[in-house]
Amino acid sequence: MKALKIPEATIVRMSVYSRFLEQVDKKGIVTISSGEIAEGVGVSPAQVRKDLAYFGEFGTRGVGYNVKDLLKHTLKILGLSGKWTVVVVGVGNLGSALISYRGFRERGFEIVGVFDNDVTKIGKKIMDLEVMGPEKMEEIIKQHNVKIGIITVPASAAQEAANQLIKAGVKAILNFAPKVLSVPDNVQVRDIDLSTRLEILTFHLCMKNA
Amino acid sequence: MKALKIPEATIVRMSVYSRFLEQVDKKGIVTISSGEIAEGVGVSPAQVRKDLAYFGEFGTRGVGYNVKDLLKHTLKILGLSGKWTVVVVGVGNLGSALISYRGFRERGFEIVGVFDNDVTKIGKKIMDLEVMGPEKMEEIIKQHNVKIGIITVPASAAQEAANQLIKAGVKAILNFAPKVLSVPDNVQVRDIDLSTRLEILTFHLCMKNA
Repeated sequence: MKALKIPEATIVRMSVYSRFLEQVDKKGIVTISSGEIAEGVGVSPAQVRKDLAYFGEFGTRGVGYNVKDLLKHTLKILGLSGKWTVVVVGVGNLGSALISYRGFRERGFEIVGVFDNDVTKIGKKIMDLEVMGPEKMEEIIKQHNVKIGIITVPASAAQEAANQLIKAGVKAILNFAPKVLSVPDNVQVRDIDLSTRLEILTFHLCMKNA
Repeated sequence: MKALKIPEATIVRMSVYSRFLEQVDKKGIVTISSGEIAEGVGVSPAQVRKDLAYFGEFGTRGVGYNVKDLLKHTLKILGLSGKWTVVVVGVGNLGSALISYRGFRERGFEIVGVFDNDVTKIGKKIMDLEVMGPEKMEEIIKQHNVKIGIITVPASAAQEAANQLIKAGVKAILNFAPKVLSVPDNVQVRDIDLSTRLEILTFHLCMKNA
C-alpha cells in the first residue's frame, strides 16, 4: 500500500464505512452490498467501490461483501486492529469533554494521561484519570508507548504543548487549538477547530444575505 | 464580496486571525504587523497579507494594523457582528459536552434549544437548558429565528435530524455524525467527525511502519 497515493477523503470515508459496518455487524447482518453501504453513510455506490478498490479486492460480484470480513479489513487499513494509547494536554472545558467522550474508546483509543499546567487542576480526577503537570508527560508517554497526543490548550500554549509531546515520543497530534503547529516531517498533525467550523457557516450565511 | 472566489482555507484562517486579535486586543496592544499575526497563529506573513487582501485594504505600510479595527473587520467578514442562535440535536456524551463548551458562546453563538428523542433525557437540564423532544424543534427554531443547527445524534438518526432542522428553517448545519447528509442547495453543511480525525492519524502511523 502506498499511503501517499490515497486521498485523505478516501481515508475519511473508510473511517465512516468502518463505523457503519460495526453497526450493521451488531445487528447480525452477514452480507452487504456497496449500495447498502452507500445508502447507510450517504455517498454513491460507485464511490464506495472506488474507495475500497484502493485497498484491494473485497466482496463477490452479485453477492456483496461479508460484513465481518470487510469490517476487519477496514479496521486493519485504518490501523485499528489493536489499541492506541492517547494523552490529552489541556483540561479545560473542551479537554474535559473529550476525555469523557465515549466515541474514542469505542474505536480502540485509550486515554492514559491528562495534563494541564494549571496548579488548581493538577491532582483532580476526570473519568478516573488524575490530571498531571507537564513535567510528568514524558514519563507517562514512554511508559504507555503513546504515539498520539490531543491538544486542547489555548492557542498561545499549543506550540509548547506540541513540542513537549514530540520530545517525549508522540508521532501524531490532533490539535483543537486555533493555531497552526510547526512540527518535524515525521510527525502527523490534524486540526479540528470547533469555532472555526461554525464560523465558516456564518460566513456563508452572511454572504447569501449580502 | 464574492463568496465563491474565497478559498475555504482563507475563511478558516480568518477565523483563527480573528481569535488571535481578540487575545491581542485584551492585552491592550494597539497596533500589530502581519509578521506578528503570522507568528501568533503559525502561518507566513505573506499568507496573512494575502488572506486579508481578499477582503479589501487594511493597515498602513510600515505601521501595521490597528488591532481593534482589524478585529472588528474580521468579525464582520465572518458574520460575527451580532449574536447567532443555535440549536443542538442529540444530547448524548458529545452533545452534552458541546452544550457546555464555552468556546462557542465566547464567539457570539447562543444555544437556545437542545433536543433528543430519548424520553429518559427529555425534561432534564443541561446548562440551564431543558432537553426537549423533536416535536418542539420547529417552535423553538421559529421563536428564536435559529439559522444554525448542530447535529450530534448517531449516524442512523442524522438525516432525519437534518430534515427536521431544515423544515423548521435552519440554513446551516454543523454535523458531528459520521454520515454524509443530503440537503437542499441553499443549506450549508460542514462535518466534524472526531473519531475520523483520529483515524486519519492512525492510518498514517501504520503506513509509516508498514
